Formats: sequence, structure tokens, C-alpha cells
Amino acid sequence: MAEWIWYPGEFEHKYVCEVNMRKYKRNHVTMPIWKVAPLYPYVKFEKTFILKEDEEFTVFTDGICTLESNGRNRFVRQAGNKYLLKAGEHRLAVSVYADPGKICTVFIDSKTIVTDSTWECSLMDGILRPVDCCGFSQAENTPNAYKLPLVRRDYVKKTQEKEFILYDFGKETFGYLCFQNPNGKGKLKIYYGESEDEARDFDFCELLDELSLENGNDRTQLTKAFRYVAVQKTDGADYDDIHMLYEYRPFEKCAYLKTQDELLQKIWDTSIYTLDLNRREFFLDGIKRDRWVWSGDATQAYLMNWYSFFDEDVARKTQVALAGKEEITQHLNTIVDYTLYWLISFRDHYRYTGDKRFITMWYDRFCQLADYVLSCADEKYRIQKRKKDWVFIDWGKGLTKDSDSYSFLQILLCHAMRGASEVAQIVGDAQNQARFAGIAQSVYQDLQENYYDHELGAFIYSIKDGKPDRVVLRQPNIMAIFYGVATKQQGAAICESVLLNESIPALETPYMRFYELSALCMLGKHSLVYDEIKSYWGGMLNEGATSFWELYRPEEKGPERYAMYNYKYGKSLCHAWGASPLWLIGRYFLGLEPAEDGYRKFKMKPCLEVFKDLEVKFYTAQGAVTVNYNKKRISIFAENCEGTVEIGDKSYCVAKNAILDLKL
Amino acid sequence: MAEWIWYPGEFEHKYVCEVNMRKYKRNHVTMPIWKVAPLYPYVKFEKTFILKEDEEFTVFTDGICTLESNGRNRFVRQAGNKYLLKAGEHRLAVSVYADPGKICTVFIDSKTIVTDSTWECSLMDGILRPVDCCGFSQAENTPNAYKLPLVRRDYVKKTQEKEFILYDFGKETFGYLCFQNPNGKGKLKIYYGESEDEARDFDFCELLDELSLENGNDRTQLTKAFRYVAVQKTDGADYDDIHMLYEYRPFEKCAYLKTQDELLQKIWDTSIYTLDLNRREFFLDGIKRDRWVWSGDATQAYLMNWYSFFDEDVARKTQVALAGKEEITQHLNTIVDYTLYWLISFRDHYRYTGDKRFITMWYDRFCQLADYVLSCADEKYRIQKRKKDWVFIDWGKGLTKDSDSYSFLQILLCHAMRGASEVAQIVGDAQNQARFAGIAQSVYQDLQENYYDHELGAFIYSIKDGKPDRVVLRQPNIMAIFYGVATKQQGAAICESVLLNESIPALETPYMRFYELSALCMLGKHSLVYDEIKSYWGGMLNEGATSFWELYRPEEKGPERYAMYNYKYGKSLCHAWGASPLWLIGRYFLGLEPAEDGYRKFKMKPCLEVFKDLEVKFYTAQGAVTVNYNKKRISIFAENCEGTVEIGDKSYCVAKNAILDLKL
Repeated sequence: MAEWIWYPGEFEHKYVCEVNMRKYKRNHVTMPIWKVAPLYPYVKFEKTFILKEDEEFTVFTDGICTLESNGRNRFVRQAGNKYLLKAGEHRLAVSVYADPGKICTVFIDSKTIVTDSTWECSLMDGILRPVDCCGFSQAENTPNAYKLPLVRRDYVKKTQEKEFILYDFGKETFGYLCFQNPNGKGKLKIYYGESEDEARDFDFCELLDELSLENGNDRTQLTKAFRYVAVQKTDGADYDDIHMLYEYRPFEKCAYLKTQDELLQKIWDTSIYTLDLNRREFFLDGIKRDRWVWSGDATQAYLMNWYSFFDEDVARKTQVALAGKEEITQHLNTIVDYTLYWLISFRDHYRYTGDKRFITMWYDRFCQLADYVLSCADEKYRIQKRKKDWVFIDWGKGLTKDSDSYSFLQILLCHAMRGASEVAQIVGDAQNQARFAGIAQSVYQDLQENYYDHELGAFIYSIKDGKPDRVVLRQPNIMAIFYGVATKQQGAAICESVLLNESIPALETPYMRFYELSALCMLGKHSLVYDEIKSYWGGMLNEGATSFWELYRPEEKGPERYAMYNYKYGKSLCHAWGASPLWLIGRYFLGLEPAEDGYRKFKMKPCLEVFKDLEVKFYTAQGAVTVNYNKKRISIFAENCEGTVEIGDKSYCVAKNAILDLKL
Repeated sequence: MAEWIWYPGEFEHKYVCEVNMRKYKRNHVTMPIWKVAPLYPYVKFEKTFILKEDEEFTVFTDGICTLESNGRNRFVRQAGNKYLLKAGEHRLAVSVYADPGKICTVFIDSKTIVTDSTWECSLMDGILRPVDCCGFSQAENTPNAYKLPLVRRDYVKKTQEKEFILYDFGKETFGYLCFQNPNGKGKLKIYYGESEDEARDFDFCELLDELSLENGNDRTQLTKAFRYVAVQKTDGADYDDIHMLYEYRPFEKCAYLKTQDELLQKIWDTSIYTLDLNRREFFLDGIKRDRWVWSGDATQAYLMNWYSFFDEDVARKTQVALAGKEEITQHLNTIVDYTLYWLISFRDHYRYTGDKRFITMWYDRFCQLADYVLSCADEKYRIQKRKKDWVFIDWGKGLTKDSDSYSFLQILLCHAMRGASEVAQIVGDAQNQARFAGIAQSVYQDLQENYYDHELGAFIYSIKDGKPDRVVLRQPNIMAIFYGVATKQQGAAICESVLLNESIPALETPYMRFYELSALCMLGKHSLVYDEIKSYWGGMLNEGATSFWELYRPEEKGPERYAMYNYKYGKSLCHAWGASPLWLIGRYFLGLEPAEDGYRKFKMKPCLEVFKDLEVKFYTAQGAVTVNYNKKRISIFAENCEGTVEIGDKSYCVAKNAILDLKL
């Protein structure tokens, strides 16, 4: 099949820049605080063809191009972009110079000469790389015109106020507003709200728009997130009615959960919807005022994704977009931890998908990022915070940033280096496999010897002024469990002395809560986590949430529910990390995970005692796994994939396309 | 003075790409065979200001921008792009996201807040660099709209033929054709010629155009080089008359030469005009079908420039454009020698201009290019030709490319490394100063021990299959003299056994002839060179040249004069390297050169015996030097600069703004 092809990464770098430039505060753009990759204006694509007979073909590009065969311009050029190539062997090369702002891309769909993933490309410097492509298979559908699809949605309620009309679309949504039969010459002033309070609060709502009718506008120019909109007609502007165009990323598959437990059902469905709204060109952190692509947020979104949409494409694109392309002079999103998360997610991507082409294509960049992190570490591999670096870790109490080194970062580094060694092995780079494994071991030993405090039963927070600070916080200890740096014995100690210890400051962000609840599951505290899912996420639903929030404090009841970052409506009411029940249920309650990279085999260790009944379907890279559970029996059907299931202390094989049915 | 500012190199990279994309063969573009640098879409500009009172200011960009002070958005935004900054100290930062295809640039011209060369910029990664700017000092005159100026010129002769009209513009020219009162709906077909033969030869002329009158066109879309144009009216297309818009680069100063020797006067004037036509946004190789920016050609153009326009700006811009910006994965223009010439010219730039800001700004790139060259050499610093490398040297007999190493490249490397050591010293990098000097010394010794053949009295061409090939060619021996690698004794030997030895194949290109004539002057063969100037350049004038050619063979008299590269009109009749009399006269007959970097002092060693009379004015970085000469006396006036003059074996001081008058 013919496809538009391009230099790897160009698609992602074009669109992640456009996406990151769509973050608005009121009606002003907020541009990213990090590097934006430039696009290559000039790329050469090539492949060898053997033509049995003369072949005429048409070349489509978004720019201008020259063709050569075997190093020379040897073509008969027909009218326009038609060429004729004589029978024989040809090293066909198409050099494309793109129109401003566009990526270099080419499409040929002839008898023999067809652009597809088997072509190679270079920046005219003789260094050939495989091209990238992702399903743009029609000449008229160029990757430079990529847009997510739109579908009409109507409001569910309209309230006429004195000064404005308030529309309620029934739930959190995202897209454009359309005005039917606009007339008059004035302006429509539009105030958006994720909550009704926000849409009514013209002076403080996060997003607003103005539409001048005289220019023939009948829809807004930029997608916005909202549930409510207030529209004010000024200077005679008017219209008949409104609707919206919902923008969405299509999906081929989506995990499901069915249960008679209504609250659980609603938590699941709302989690799916929340992740779906943030699953756009890339994974966003949140869709209202946030709208940037952050490596830390994406790392959780990937994991939820493997237990919901299993959308490999958006995961790949987000990884590539975050990786950047030029000389690395700063951490991803300027945050040290975020470069480490990127490395970890890259390894995870292969674990879930087994996509070797992807891993191989980006291995060089992976090594560059790994080496960049190491270049910021001292001779003990302790990562140094330079003046321009942001060590994020988490928001919350006690997270000071004036230490020599941080156990949190070292734990991430240890896990990242273990993964890096595995990635090197996968692509057959024995030298780096050994090097990264050695570093992982050094970092592990350093953590064990200098950061774990046997007396406290916990990893301390940092080394400060050359000495262990003996400060115990949740964040590093959660990560030590989650990333397998704590021994089993240390895990048990941490559970008591940190996780279940109320004198240790509680977490404030659902971001870190993702890892804490995961760690608790890993320590076998499933029922505690189950209760938390029902109360925390159930709590948001009680507050009227139709998508899950950036932050939820049960004690907040009034307008303060919507405030954050010192802004009255600063809180995102649709935040990717709010969807963590998808991950928690799939990964820890169903206990599904790849037994081998790419789900060549899966394993499952369900812990469903807390559920009354459950029918779930999850995807693997090979096919779907469906589980039917009630207190009396469990049945498992694995479509086109095989694996093992552990129930209690027994292990069962699940054969391809056969049902395993067990009485409990 | 307020100026538009940008990230260093962006201006050059934008325009060199546009320029290189304007090379046409017939009516098809020929795109460059090397890498094109992408533009940074997002740049942060910053500077600290102390405001005594609140200040309102307007920000101009070609894109969108956000402003911050002391790391926070702290502005009161007025209407449009107006901002108000409160009294106090501010680290003001403007982050610019450019419109597609444009460079990030900003202009502010307020009371205190003014953009100029004292600002810094970064790619959002905290790595600050000084900004660049070059005289765009008005808000409405953005560097993204840069265009060379145009002026009307009329043809001198019109010939009505049966099928077309032929216009003669009297001499080689460059620009657009304009049709007065175009009418009818057909097309005008335009055939260009540097010669009359070419314009009349519709099937083989190098450049042609088609103008559809129905779209309201009244001028051609792309600048073209020509002296003659043939215009054919088709399908009822018509017009009253034509003229052209001559495109030119303005200049502030231009050296002159006045003499009663008419031929010499014409050679000088035609050389000036030839270089001027090729002195555009950058130095081009030739203006007809060539129109690319080549490092080898530019190296000679710089040297001619120091003895004619002394246009520092075009020299700087050409150097920067050629240097590229990204990871270096290929030689400049893909040619090994051309990277070496770039290094040599960079050092020379400082010698002539003393522009320390420029040298300092590009020192990092200089080192990257130097290290790239060294990375292509073996442990003896012998440069290796990789498969993708083009070792050019010259066109001509015997220049095989299958050796292990080439004395020509090693001589260039030796000189480049000597210069690199000096550049390192200038910017205060003692480590590289020593390193480069050491390499230069090693290369020199290797040349002396393994490439110079005492028996032959010459540098051999190459080491092949591990052994000296004992092949004697002019090219390396010319360069050994020109770049001071040959000892005085070796120079004398080479003069006899190579330069004046008719059994050694003669050069075919004026490109290498530039260096040969220079070397002959360095060996004191001025009268021989003088005769050659008169006969070779005089010969072209006899053939009707109005600008000097890419190649001239006196024996060719008919249409073969215009052929080259297997094309009937492939030869460029206006080629930068054709202007070498400017350099030869200035550098060797007047003998003017910097005695110290930047002409803090000049020295002059005239060798004018061959001239009857001469009045010349040349520029130094400090001011002009005027020389009046006849067989009886010489007088020298140095405006705002000082130096020494050697006449015979006597040396005289030339004081600032005083006349030195000597009887001969």
C-alpha cells in the first residue's frame, strides 16, 4: 500500500509544536517553556527499483522536488509532476524542499514505484535512515493537512439570563462552537467553563473568545475544553442557535468493564472518557488551560493506555515528540525526572507492544538522552541539579530542592538504566547493554548503602551538605517499591513506616497517588486501594464530575473546589492522570501484564475478591483478553494470544482462542 | 539605535536556502546537493533593564510572542502589542514563535527598552548567546522581508525578427523583465542569453520563462542573468515595450583604478563589475545557471573583495551561511577541500577586518568544523576520502581520486591548522591554540618528509597504495607556495620544475589559475603575470566580454566558446573567479596587505614597473589608501590609517592622513 513518507520524527515535531502553542490563558497564548524542534526543509528519499518496462508515475509533495536515478537527473518529465522512468534498475531518489512550515513528504502510487516504509531517507548527507509513515495512504490526504475529525454535538440545556445565554453540553467536552445563521455586525463574546460557576464568571473564567460576525465567522477558531458556555451578544450580533463540533481521536479498540456495581461502572466509564479527551494528537496533561505534552504526565497516560485504548500510535508519537531532535542541551520539559521517565517509558513501550521497528528507529535518540542524563551526574552517578534544571519530583510538603542529590532521582535512574540495558540487548548493542547494566548496579548499590536507612525503615529523601538528611517522605519510598529498587524486606518496612504511617505527610497530587496506589497493590493492599478508588473517584462523581480532575480534596465543597495555582478556576477538571483506575484495575486487580516483551505471552494474577461481579476486556499486542468474574467462577478468553493465569497458588495455562473456566 | 535582532545565523540560513533554491536549468529548479539548515521556530531574547519610571513599549515580531520579567509574566498588556513595564530592575525576556518560514526576530524602540546587539538569546535551554543584527533599524523593515534593491535599466538595441524580438541590454545584467502595457490573453515566451547566440537558440538556451498575461502579470517572477532576451508573443499576447529591473547589492565603498592604459582600465572595470554581479545576498559562483554559494569560490571572492568593495557584511554572511548549523555530518558543499577553505577564510576574515565580535561569535562553529575535518583524518592527520566525500582539488588532467591521501589536501590542512591556532589565540583559547599548532606542525613535517620529492623538485600528488606516487601536478605545488608550506628553496625549485615547466599539464580552470598567478607573483614573476592579465583577460574582452567568464580558451573562436559541462551554453559568462585581477593587482602589484590583524597597520610593497601610470584607491578596515604612480614618482595617502611602504630595499613610514611622496 502506498503511503506518504517522511523523515522520522518530522510529523511529531510539526504537530507537537502546534499543539503546545494552543495553550491559552484567557485570550492570550502561553507558549511552552522549553525548546521547540525546527523542521528539516530539505530531505532526500530513495529506494532501488527494478522496472520490467517503462513506468510513468506521479509525484506528490507539499513543496517542490527533483528526481534522480542512479545519481543523475535522467528523467523524461511529463506535464506537471509526472515522470517517466525507463525499464531497468534504478536507485530512485526524490529530493523534497517543503513549503514553509510543512514537513518534507512524498507520495507515489504507481505500478512498481510506490512510497512505503521500505524507503530510506537522508538530510542529503549520505546518512540513510528508514522513513516513517503512519497510514496517510491517499494522494489528497497529505500529512501536512492532518487534523483530528469533528462530529456535531448539541447542548442539553439552555438558560436565558439577562445579559447572556448559558448553554450546558451535559458533560466535559472539547472542540469548536458553531453559530447557526449568524447575523448583525457586532461581536459574540464567549466565556467557557468546565463548571457552571466558571462560565458565569466572566472576569475569572480561564478561557474566553470573541467572534466578529462582520468577517463572516460562524465558528470559533481554536478548540477549547468546556462543559458550559456563556454567550453575550454585543452591538447587534445575533444568531439562531448553537451547537458544537466535538474533536476526537478515533480508536479501533477500547477496553471495557461491565458490572452491576453502578459506582464502579461510572468510575470506569468516566476514566475512559477522561483519558480519551486527553488522548489527542499526543497525550496531553489536561485539556483546559494545560494543553501541553509533558513527559511525566505521558508516562502515566501510556500505562493507562495499555489497559484501555491500547493506542500504540499515540504512544509512539508522544514519545517521539518529547524526545526532541537536536543537540540535547536541556532536560525534557526542562525537568530532570521527566527525561528519566522518558527512558523508562521507551523500554515499557516495547514490553507492551513488541514494536521492534520503533525501538530500533529511535535507539540512537534513546542513547543520546540516556547519555545526557549521565552527563549531568557525578562520578558516583548521582544526578546533579544545575541552575537551569527543574527537579520536580512532586508538589507537596518537605520537597526541598537544595540538596546534593535526591534518592527519588537515583531510583528513577536505577530503573531507567536497567531498562536501558534491556533496550540495548533488544537492538543487539552488547557494549551498551553491559555499560548500562553496570551503571544500574552502581546506582542500586549506592541507594542501598547511602540512601536506605535501616533504622527508619525507609529511603531518606536526600544527601545534603555531604550527609544523609534522614528525612522520610512518601515519594522516594513509593518509587523504590514501584520500580523494584526496594528489596521485599525493605518493601514491608516501607509499607509500615511510610505508606501506612499517618505521621508522614500525605500526598497532595493524584500524580504521585498513581504510584502510591500502585505500590500498595504491589504490597498486597488491594482492598485498601479498592476503597480508595470508590471514595476518591466516587467523591469526584458526587461533586458532579463528568471527567476526572487534576486534584480533588474531599473537604473542599464550595468554589474552592475549582481553584488551583492561585487562580479561581485554575484547576483542570479533565486531567489525564485522573484516569488512573484504568491502570489500577487492569494492572493490579486483573493483574494482567506481558510475560514476555510484546505480549508474546501474557500473565494474569487476578485479585478480584473486592468485586462482586465483573466482565472486562483488555487488549494485548496480540489480541483481547476477556474475563468474566463473579464470586463463584471466573472464565477467561484470550483471543489470538496465550498466557498463564495464577489463581491463589495455582497456575493455569490459557490457550489461544480457548475458554478457561474455573470454579472458585 | 534600535535594530531587529535574531539568533545568530538565522538570517543567513533563511536566505542562503532561498538563494540556493533559485538555480534553474531551462525552466526547472536545480536544488542544492547538500544539507539545508532548518530555522529555529522559537527563540527567547533577553536583557536586563533598570527603569527609572514606568515605560510603555511596543513589541514587533513576525509571529507571536510572550513577555516576561524576572521569570514571570508580570505585564500589563495594553492594546495590541503594547506593554507597560513598571519602574525598577527587570530581566526582560521576549519569547518569539515565528510564522512559518520566517526567522524569530524582535524589534523594540522605546525610551530605555531598545533592541540592539547588547541583547542575548537562547533556544529556551538557558544557553545564552549574543544576538545578531545587521542594520534593520525600522519597525516596518523586518529582516524577514529582506530583498536586494531594484533599479530600472533600458535595453540599448531592439531587433525585430520574424518570430520574435531580440533585445540587447548592452552588457551582462541581472534582474527582472518588465512588460509595459501587457495586453491580450496569451503567453509571452522569453529566452535569455548571456550571448546573442544563446538568446536566439530557443532549444538550448540555459534559461527561459513563460509569462501568462491573463493573470495580470507584467514582470517575470525570478531574477535571471542575461545580456540578451528574445521574446515571442503567442496566442495574441502583446505589450508596448520592455525594460528591466536591475537587482543589485548597494555598496558604501569601492576601490578604483585609473590609468591611461585603456586595456588595463577595461580589465579592472570589468573585474569590478563581474565581482559586483556575483556579490549578492552572498557571494555566488556565477549568476546564470550556477547561482549556488560554494565555499571554494567564496574563498577567492573574499580575497578579491578585500581589494575592491571591502564589503565585510557579505563576507560575514557568506561564511556563516556556508558553516551550516546542525550536527556536522558532511563536508561543506560535500567537498573536503571546501571545509578547509572555510577554515582558512575565517582566519583571513579577521586578518583583514579585525572583527573580533564576529570571530568570537562563530568560534564554536569554527572548532566544530575543524574537529570534523580532523575526525576524517587518520592518526598521521592524513585526510581520508570517505565514499560520500567529494575531493575536488580542481578540474584538469591527472587529478585521480583513488589515492590514500593527497598532498593538496594536506597543504590546505597545514595552513588551516596554523590559522586555527591563531584564531584560538585571538579568542583566548590557549588549549586549542597549542593543539592546532601541534597538528599544523605534524602535517608540515609529514609533507616535508613524505610528499616533497627532492629529486623532482616538487611535491608529489599523492600517496597511493602506501607509496608516494611521484606524480607531479601543478595544483599541490601552487598551493605549497601560496600557503607558505614550501620553503624558499623549495619554492625556487618548484618554480623551475613545475610552474615554468611546460611539460607539466597546464591548468584548465581560472579557479586554480587564481592561485597559480598569485604564486608566480610571490616568486617575483610579476611581469609574467602582468602579461598574462593583459592577454587572458584582454582576450576575453576581445571576444566581447562585458563580464569575465568561468573559463576562457583563446583557441576557441566559434560557438564552442560558450559550451561547458556538455551543454551548448553551459559556460558562465559572469563568474566571480573571473575577477581575479582585482586581487592580483591589489595584493601583488600594489603589494598591500595587513601588517597586523584588522589593518591596525598596513604594509605595502609595490611592484609597479610594468605599469606606465596608475592611480588606485584601496580600502583597509581603518580607511582608504590611495596611490598615485608614474614611472618617475609615487605618492601614497593613507586616510585614517598608517603603515609602511617598501620601495626597492628602502622602507618608509606612512603616517595617518599625510602624503608620502617619493621620486623614483
